[in-house]
Amino acid sequence: METYTGIPEELKFLVLKRIKPTEPEREKLLVIQEELASQVKAAAKKLDVPGVLVKMVGSAARGTWLSGTHDIDIFISFPEETSRKELETLGIAVARDVAKHAEHVEDRHAEHPYLNITYKGFDVDLVPCFRVASASQIKSAVDRTPFHNDFVKPRIKGHEDEVLLLKQFMRGGGVYGSELKTQGFSGYLTEILIIYYGSFENTVCAACTWKPGEKIDIMHHSEIEHEEPLVVVDPTDPRRNVAAALSLDKFCMFIDHCREFLKTPELSFFFPASLLPLGDTEILEKLESRKSTQLAIVFKTPDVVEDILFPQLYKMEQAVAALLKEYDFTVIKTGVWSGKTETAVMLELISGVLPNVKKHVGPPVWVKVHAEKFKEKYQVAAGVFGGYIENGKYIFEIRRKYPMAKGLLEDRLMTCSLGKQVQQSVSEGFKIIENAGICRLKDPDFRIYLRKWM
Amino acid sequence: METYTGIPEELKFLVLKRIKPTEPEREKLLVIQEELASQVKAAAKKLDVPGVLVKMVGSAARGTWLSGTHDIDIFISFPEETSRKELETLGIAVARDVAKHAEHVEDRHAEHPYLNITYKGFDVDLVPCFRVASASQIKSAVDRTPFHNDFVKPRIKGHEDEVLLLKQFMRGGGVYGSELKTQGFSGYLTEILIIYYGSFENTVCAACTWKPGEKIDIMHHSEIEHEEPLVVVDPTDPRRNVAAALSLDKFCMFIDHCREFLKTPELSFFFPASLLPLGDTEILEKLESRKSTQLAIVFKTPDVVEDILFPQLYKMEQAVAALLKEYDFTVIKTGVWSGKTETAVMLELISGVLPNVKKHVGPPVWVKVHAEKFKEKYQVAAGVFGGYIENGKYIFEIRRKYPMAKGLLEDRLMTCSLGKQVQQSVSEGFKIIENAGICRLKDPDFRIYLRKWM
Repeated sequence: METYTGIPEELKFLVLKRIKPTEPEREKLLVIQEELASQVKAAAKKLDVPGVLVKMVGSAARGTWLSGTHDIDIFISFPEETSRKELETLGIAVARDVAKHAEHVEDRHAEHPYLNITYKGFDVDLVPCFRVASASQIKSAVDRTPFHNDFVKPRIKGHEDEVLLLKQFMRGGGVYGSELKTQGFSGYLTEILIIYYGSFENTVCAACTWKPGEKIDIMHHSEIEHEEPLVVVDPTDPRRNVAAALSLDKFCMFIDHCREFLKTPELSFFFPASLLPLGDTEILEKLESRKSTQLAIVFKTPDVVEDILFPQLYKMEQAVAALLKEYDFTVIKTGVWSGKTETAVMLELISGVLPNVKKHVGPPVWVKVHAEKFKEKYQVAAGVFGGYIENGKYIFEIRRKYPMAKGLLEDRLMTCSLGKQVQQSVSEGFKIIENAGICRLKDPDFRIYLRKWM
Repeated sequence: METYTGIPEELKFLVLKRIKPTEPEREKLLVIQEELASQVKAAAKKLDVPGVLVKMVGSAARGTWLSGTHDIDIFISFPEETSRKELETLGIAVARDVAKHAEHVEDRHAEHPYLNITYKGFDVDLVPCFRVASASQIKSAVDRTPFHNDFVKPRIKGHEDEVLLLKQFMRGGGVYGSELKTQGFSGYLTEILIIYYGSFENTVCAACTWKPGEKIDIMHHSEIEHEEPLVVVDPTDPRRNVAAALSLDKFCMFIDHCREFLKTPELSFFFPASLLPLGDTEILEKLESRKSTQLAIVFKTPDVVEDILFPQLYKMEQAVAALLKEYDFTVIKTGVWSGKTETAVMLELISGVLPNVKKHVGPPVWVKVHAEKFKEKYQVAAGVFGGYIENGKYIFEIRRKYPMAKGLLEDRLMTCSLGKQVQQSVSEGFKIIENAGICRLKDPDFRIYLRKWM
């Protein structure tokens, strides 16, 4: 593989200085990991659960975590022949025993239950899993993780800094994180990219000419076709695309981020200036300058995890835009913001007001039965302005039911197909806020979002 | 052919009473025709032009003219071997000699020159033509007319009333007249329809189920395909469509008029109530009720005949609508009005104002060269609001050049492709009038047009 140079060493040095865990930080993590591993083993023994092994996985185990993050993933591995039910009860029992020493405990649920605890300031996941022979034989999605660990750990040795640079660079570009909110690059994906391309620089240079359909298959063992823009075949599972969660736009944003960075390699691509909340005066100025119509649909934030909430919000965004379009409003763009208490679906329209008159195009005059029915219906309808023939078709100028986008949404938002929790929250109440009314939303995080939006 | 009944005889009687020339009217016309024929012959003799014959043609010669119209068509027929130049000079010389007795004389030009005179209150065309062996061998379009006369006259005998009813019915529906302004049915076409269908009633009933592509070929001698909605093969020329000038919309308006008439056969289908000019208050009320944007492009009426003016106005109507659409304005409908002094192209828009911000969609990010060029151009352009990636494409929110339709037209109307005379007149000056400003146009004929328009 060709090796690119051109990114100043000092720049990488400066970045690493800020993101690479210090020696004391590493030592502390190691100590904590050991403590927790011992506690898991002790708990299994105490509860008389045989065959349990402890697996340290994730970036903490591989030395590829960013300084300041305090995540530890501990997998409690059961023999393959364990039943799902047993795994769940015994696994959680062991985890709960460990959690006795924690500052905070939370029951969480992926494909099966696990515990998330805060332990000496670290955010620790205690995850029961099956010990299967290969990643293609997994019984639950989490069973794959130990295989990832086994693949990455020996190959990433000596290249940890490159992973850190790439992760921070992706953070700076807003494309790091494979949760459903972000739809970006996962940590495992960045590690595979570094293993494949050899370095941060090579990855960035290669990405500049990526196209949708780009395929990386380190083990040359791909078994199926994938539709996603980037296909990175999982080295531990020939049927899985590691980049399946990456959206087209995040894929493109990364390409764009790489190109811009190579033009002017600067620290800001890793650490963009933090945005200030948009003030009321600025909002009013921007409204006046754009002269479009801004709408916000505001409702109580549903009490669910982001991986459930955001897909529902994105779905709502689509459904609302389709509703507005159906009633002739032109949507410039849509967006979603969700804070602790309130959530807003944002819409920018060419105009929130349409004329009362609406041109309703009917069938061609010569399609006799249809045409006559159409004409009979509309020539007597209430509020019809007039009718004529254009391009061989009956046209009636009828009265528009919803000349205001706000009224349309107030009246018909609930007819949109919404996700369960969002539907529930919206049905309990929502507000449609228009233009300057947006100043009523004071949450600083929303105001930061607004700065990008407007 | 099936014979329909159902139109009350009294109704037809009442109509004919108003449109059928009286006996004194007929006699007077006959006398005038004879006088003019003698004068043509005398002039030819006096000027020593040999081989000239006089042909009385048109509805006056066939007894199918509507009472109150005073049109006489006299064809001055020259031997086929006459040169075009000779026909033009000698023909006009003869006509000009006849015109000595006229109250008013006007030189006109179709394929070759002819005279239009006012003689004892009649509107007389004196048209030189070639005497060819058959209509398919004509040397000039007007040479066809005598053949039409020869075909219609013997066959329409006894059915003149049916022709009168059909003509008046078409007038009532706004579809009578084959000039380029109206694009409706010609007199000759109505006569052929009566010859083919046998009566006014049969024609009206048949037209209710007409479809585009409807073909009538009395002589079964059609030689070529035609694209027009109604194809009536000329009995005197197998290659010509008598209904070539009929537009799709006038074709459909006639179908609609026939259907409505058969539902409730009333006098108003022949004599619609005349519309009153729209008053200022009504204009303001209608503007308030429709809430759309009305625009009028007003300029001096070019000094040309309607057959030249109207195609240019229709072309302008299209060009202006295309210009507005190109700049994102949504046109509801367009129209044209032309009075003695002023002409107006009318436009109704969803809105005459658009936001300053315009969403400009660029190439996909992965089309590297194009995408980079696009981004480089717009990210530094003046007045750009922002940029982002959507569906894999660069989007820039740029500043709209023309947020007002009025400003767009004022600035760029002259770049539209306009006909010669309209271009000339518009270049000498035009006004863009908006909404209530329309009240400044006082011409009663315009105000009648407005009543249909709004």
